Amino acid sequence: MDQLELNPIYIAGHLNPDIDSIASAMGYAWLLHERDGKNAIAVRTGSLTAQTSWLLQTLGLEPPMLLNDASPRFNRIARPLPPILPDRPLHEALSIISSYSIGVPIVGSDNVPLGLVTGGSVFKLLSNQIRTLVDFEKVSVATLLSIKCRESMDPEVPRFPLSMRVSDARRKVLNEERNDFIVTRDDGTYFGVCRSPDVLTPPKMQLILVDHNEVSQSIRALEEAELIEVIDHHRVGTQSTITPIPFYIDCVGSTSTLISERIIASGLMPPPAIVALLLAGVISDTLLLASPTTTKRDHIIVERLMELVRKSGILPYKDHKEFGDALFSVSSSLSVLSPDKIVTTDLKLYNMNEKQFGLAQIEVGNLNELGPRVKEISEALEELCESKGLEFAVLMVTDVVRANSRLVVAGNQALLKDLPYTPLADHTMDATGIVSRKKQLLPVILGFLE
Amino acid sequence: MDQLELNPIYIAGHLNPDIDSIASAMGYAWLLHERDGKNAIAVRTGSLTAQTSWLLQTLGLEPPMLLNDASPRFNRIARPLPPILPDRPLHEALSIISSYSIGVPIVGSDNVPLGLVTGGSVFKLLSNQIRTLVDFEKVSVATLLSIKCRESMDPEVPRFPLSMRVSDARRKVLNEERNDFIVTRDDGTYFGVCRSPDVLTPPKMQLILVDHNEVSQSIRALEEAELIEVIDHHRVGTQSTITPIPFYIDCVGSTSTLISERIIASGLMPPPAIVALLLAGVISDTLLLASPTTTKRDHIIVERLMELVRKSGILPYKDHKEFGDALFSVSSSLSVLSPDKIVTTDLKLYNMNEKQFGLAQIEVGNLNELGPRVKEISEALEELCESKGLEFAVLMVTDVVRANSRLVVAGNQALLKDLPYTPLADHTMDATGIVSRKKQLLPVILGFLE
Repeated sequence: MDQLELNPIYIAGHLNPDIDSIASAMGYAWLLHERDGKNAIAVRTGSLTAQTSWLLQTLGLEPPMLLNDASPRFNRIARPLPPILPDRPLHEALSIISSYSIGVPIVGSDNVPLGLVTGGSVFKLLSNQIRTLVDFEKVSVATLLSIKCRESMDPEVPRFPLSMRVSDARRKVLNEERNDFIVTRDDGTYFGVCRSPDVLTPPKMQLILVDHNEVSQSIRALEEAELIEVIDHHRVGTQSTITPIPFYIDCVGSTSTLISERIIASGLMPPPAIVALLLAGVISDTLLLASPTTTKRDHIIVERLMELVRKSGILPYKDHKEFGDALFSVSSSLSVLSPDKIVTTDLKLYNMNEKQFGLAQIEVGNLNELGPRVKEISEALEELCESKGLEFAVLMVTDVVRANSRLVVAGNQALLKDLPYTPLADHTMDATGIVSRKKQLLPVILGFLE
Repeated sequence: MDQLELNPIYIAGHLNPDIDSIASAMGYAWLLHERDGKNAIAVRTGSLTAQTSWLLQTLGLEPPMLLNDASPRFNRIARPLPPILPDRPLHEALSIISSYSIGVPIVGSDNVPLGLVTGGSVFKLLSNQIRTLVDFEKVSVATLLSIKCRESMDPEVPRFPLSMRVSDARRKVLNEERNDFIVTRDDGTYFGVCRSPDVLTPPKMQLILVDHNEVSQSIRALEEAELIEVIDHHRVGTQSTITPIPFYIDCVGSTSTLISERIIASGLMPPPAIVALLLAGVISDTLLLASPTTTKRDHIIVERLMELVRKSGILPYKDHKEFGDALFSVSSSLSVLSPDKIVTTDLKLYNMNEKQFGLAQIEVGNLNELGPRVKEISEALEELCESKGLEFAVLMVTDVVRANSRLVVAGNQALLKDLPYTPLADHTMDATGIVSRKKQLLPVILGFLE
């Protein structure tokens, strides 16, 4: 993570990101960079789906960097002060100390840190020297200052690796008399130094959330970041902020639609790969404009983006349907994934009245694929409930083409047995005509729990 | 409330509305009506300030209707079925019952309801008649059907007044064998009928919130309404919604700016009075564009609105400053209000970590006005804390012209004594340079409680 600039803005979709989350993060990062000159960086908060990987590869785009949690790490606060070798004279260290007001790192020839020369360590050396001198008037200051750094160095200074969470070092630093510390690369070599105030109140990571606003669906340690903006198309389920921030939710089929609208309004022209990515975001989240979440605005955006894509020649498809067919045919199919993967790949967690529950979704070519696997999927769902402490979990297996779903339910099933879906012999439920988790399944379940 | 249409959209600002809340509600109602053909109605959720009353009067605008809470009342579910007189024959009632599937109201000549003829009451009458007849073959149906309604009527049917909250009748209806009820005007005369399903699950009031999003600052019984949109410029402090709704927060100086931007984007031209009202909204919320919440967008909007106002000739001021001076000179002054009014006129409640607290604000011409009244204001604040169960309350007395404030604090003062404001001899605190409750005072206090 060395290469990160000091104050970037990270743009993150939800956990288990789908194409819409990845596309809207990358599209918005492009806009903020081009329009506003911001150092905006799209990140992913989990593994890419097979669909997204295929898409990025097809478009020649690098996957966004993985950001597992929003807790600041030592790379955020380390100062890459140039180190000096242990045999250099003390005055070299002293001039650095007075310039930077921080201890000077001493490294061996292999670049492994040996310790710090600090104001305190120098004072200790000098007072020892002076105490043991019989006649200190005869010793010049120059002699003292030519002592090797090695002798004046504090070798016990704590070292923290770059990738460590700053919050995990807080207790140690609070109990420590020293103020300056060493930061190492993950291979143990020297990277920089840091000071205790940086550890106790590290600068927060600036974060923009796209395609979600619920804390339970967001990057770990969100509370340690500074949330600066939200752009989404889901229900409001967020927590309070301290100050006003731009917070946009609008009822369209995909966040990619909202980002595309902003790009079009900016008058800027994104690279064809970004256009195609946003088009895929709209197509996948609206299930080829067929989901009940689809609005006129999504239709208009698909038309505009398709027009731009066609001009650029980046995609070999004659219309958005052909592109969608190619996209959906890569969809992680029921038949190849492990039960564990099936229930977690596109899992979202929700809270209602102190109850937490999970709704997972998977797209299939044919609902008949489900039959032979119901038992193991049920078991995986039960395990999920236990490991995450969920009241219940539902897997929605959706046939995109025929616009139907089947539900597999685990956990507190008694609670859900009165859902308005027909129970089938294999203990699944028939949800004919239901394809949208957000707009069709979730409201029914929330209404149920209310 | 008889005149309300069945499915209006109400647009409400925060409790204790200021000019920005009233202006943005009225401006947005105008836009939704003109652009989208909606039956949008701006409402106020409390008394108008002296400033707002003066402004509306000057502009020749009616104050928005008062809406005290969002709980549906009987006017929402009453069906104005035409009543019949007690001496009319039963067959008239029966034909109405079969058309409307609801009991037929019988009223006296003074229009006071006497009871309902329902399927059940008719059946009871007929079976009594038939049981007492010696030879019922000789009695024609026509004879039965010419019995007067009075004899077949159920006089014990519960009556509910139009202005009663439907939720307050729920328990009675649950314990009632009858399904049909009478709704009366507030003077006791007949208005209509209603059925038990309407009482048990009344249609929710459609509500748009402007200039606030926190439940504690919103209309009473918000949870009984259907929240359909939020437009605001304060911190996010809302509760979850069941489905996605348009939810816009943006960091500008006033909600009137956001509404004006939408009106300008629509290409429509509002009446001069609405333009002037929105201008006053921006001017008052940004303290004449001097508050730290002011953005370039507010400046642009003031310029645009001022231009339109000048053309229309509705205001006799040469620029926004003159208009602002006129507006602020009406401000409810410290010297005329009761201590109770001073601490509640512009009071907002907040929640943080289960603690509730209140921040009130009042604008003055000169902070010296405060001196002689500190004691009684402190007492009023203490009473406020007790009556509302607040952890603490702060009154921010703001000199708009010199951009300074003085704070009076009550409740758990120990908690607040370390606030970064200078304590003065009269037990107030000096907050020089602080004028914005939202952007300057609230973040400090939230940071403090965190």
